[in-house]
Amino acid sequence: MDIFAKLGFRPIFWSDGHLIVLDQRKLPTEESYIRLETVEQAVMAISDLIVRGAPLIGITAAYALTLLPNISDNLAFENSCAMLKSTRPTAVNLSWAVDRMAAFYRQAVNRENLADDLLAEAVRIHQEDAESCRKIGDHGNQVISDPCRILTHCNAGALATGGIGTALGVIYTAFFSGRKIEAWVDETRPVLQGARLTAWELSRAKVPFKLITDNMAAELMSRKLIDLVIVGADRIAGNLDIANKIGTYGLAVLASYHDIPFYCAAPTSTFDTACPDGRSIPIEFRAEAEITAMFGKNIAPENCPVRNPAFDITPNELITGIITENGILKPGRQGLR
Amino acid sequence: MDIFAKLGFRPIFWSDGHLIVLDQRKLPTEESYIRLETVEQAVMAISDLIVRGAPLIGITAAYALTLLPNISDNLAFENSCAMLKSTRPTAVNLSWAVDRMAAFYRQAVNRENLADDLLAEAVRIHQEDAESCRKIGDHGNQVISDPCRILTHCNAGALATGGIGTALGVIYTAFFSGRKIEAWVDETRPVLQGARLTAWELSRAKVPFKLITDNMAAELMSRKLIDLVIVGADRIAGNLDIANKIGTYGLAVLASYHDIPFYCAAPTSTFDTACPDGRSIPIEFRAEAEITAMFGKNIAPENCPVRNPAFDITPNELITGIITENGILKPGRQGLR
Repeated sequence: MDIFAKLGFRPIFWSDGHLIVLDQRKLPTEESYIRLETVEQAVMAISDLIVRGAPLIGITAAYALTLLPNISDNLAFENSCAMLKSTRPTAVNLSWAVDRMAAFYRQAVNRENLADDLLAEAVRIHQEDAESCRKIGDHGNQVISDPCRILTHCNAGALATGGIGTALGVIYTAFFSGRKIEAWVDETRPVLQGARLTAWELSRAKVPFKLITDNMAAELMSRKLIDLVIVGADRIAGNLDIANKIGTYGLAVLASYHDIPFYCAAPTSTFDTACPDGRSIPIEFRAEAEITAMFGKNIAPENCPVRNPAFDITPNELITGIITENGILKPGRQGLR
Repeated sequence: MDIFAKLGFRPIFWSDGHLIVLDQRKLPTEESYIRLETVEQAVMAISDLIVRGAPLIGITAAYALTLLPNISDNLAFENSCAMLKSTRPTAVNLSWAVDRMAAFYRQAVNRENLADDLLAEAVRIHQEDAESCRKIGDHGNQVISDPCRILTHCNAGALATGGIGTALGVIYTAFFSGRKIEAWVDETRPVLQGARLTAWELSRAKVPFKLITDNMAAELMSRKLIDLVIVGADRIAGNLDIANKIGTYGLAVLASYHDIPFYCAAPTSTFDTACPDGRSIPIEFRAEAEITAMFGKNIAPENCPVRNPAFDITPNELITGIITENGILKPGRQGLR
């Protein structure tokens, strides 16, 4: 299944010596691509959410490290690694990809073809992520009933990864294997990745779905209109607590209350055993204007105080299964009620 | 306590033979007033959310019925009643106020001063609601700890009633009686009554608060940053299930999971014993564009399918107490864990 042929876009690609990314801030009304020519531009693209999604920002950082003008300048390389890692604190795939590129760099630094070899490593990271998505889709497909009405939050799709996505990868795999799938899409305030990105992807792929505001999921659950919840992850701790987009934890509590299976889909590059549990995962707080303004216009009074955490922690006991490229981990709720 | 002096606005008033309402669609950026001269204009004002909030639309409908050019035209009066009652199906205060005006009309129809007497009845409805709010504030104040961090949803404030509000009435009463109160305000998608109206009211009254998106409440609860939840109601069934703005039910489940008291504040005009339980309360579904567009711009792909219920039902067992002008009813969760 070539999902990109069906979708007609690629969120990132290397073309003719240049790194090109889809500007996700402009979706769904405009599909425009930006050429990233320097590490600094890549840093800006990640900070400003031009590219987002834990696996995709890792891939972006890997390619970015091949953009240095003098690739054998050790210090510039290490500085670039530090700069990229500091852009967004929660998604661990970013550190994972940068560390992997740095390890490769250190053992290859004296090679003649260092630039080519480093690019080849970035391409491998990209391709391996696409392959992980494919396998996550296949494993996840096993837990999808037919028919199945699936709620997802934020965007864990082709726009968030190097492949068909994680949570959406499962939905695509189930849908294209002929199952009757209907998706519910949380709009995912404040940045609206669900409304802008997931709804856009799903409509391109012709997966039936409906968009809802984030406060509607409980009502749907109470009316038995949701069979399963599936989300991505930005970091998974050693005890299988997950950090994911704000709102995920609330959905997990609501799913548990309504006896609905709650799955997380993520590649193993999302795991961080250096974090023993969710409390040790750093949470990014973002700008107030994400909540108080829209299209540059105020939707709250002047100087309105705000709290804007971008992520929350879902404890492992609320998670039915974590779908990885290697199979499904079952931290909690075995033998669902 | 004259909250209106502190706030510096009145959402509805009768002035010099005219009905004036604050155009709530334009808040928080613009404070403008509209004169309603006919029943049809009042119907439009209620349908389009120029005035909203269950008690306030009841008051608006009561005044509207005094605007008929020929007040002794029985048929025109009855038609106006029907038209007003059909504008919004969930809030029962609307039917309650129209039915009360109609009953008054029928027994007063032959009086010489019918127009004046009818206006006096509308003023009584308005004043009684203000008095109910004051009493709700006093009763509610008894369940507020000091200090107390209170989450509220939508707008159940001075902008939703004839007085200081119901849920916000409790917050104002506690705050102005000297307690250390901090409010958390759900922005309340899709129409953003929390961000646009509640945040505006609270900042005018100088009550400390922070605005959050609707998907953040669970995260705050898990970090023990919320001591109590209080919301209004659009209709309360005979078994004390409540209909309120979409998202209320989810908050009640989350509050229960985190052992946080969950209160509803509403005047007895909100009670509808003709509905034995929540399932018999009609739920209004609203236009798709409320979710897919903002300031006339698309925030979702073209032709995006949507589900947009304006209200949900919270079953009585999730409600710690219902604060009315007559005291606090305790449908469930007595002796909180």
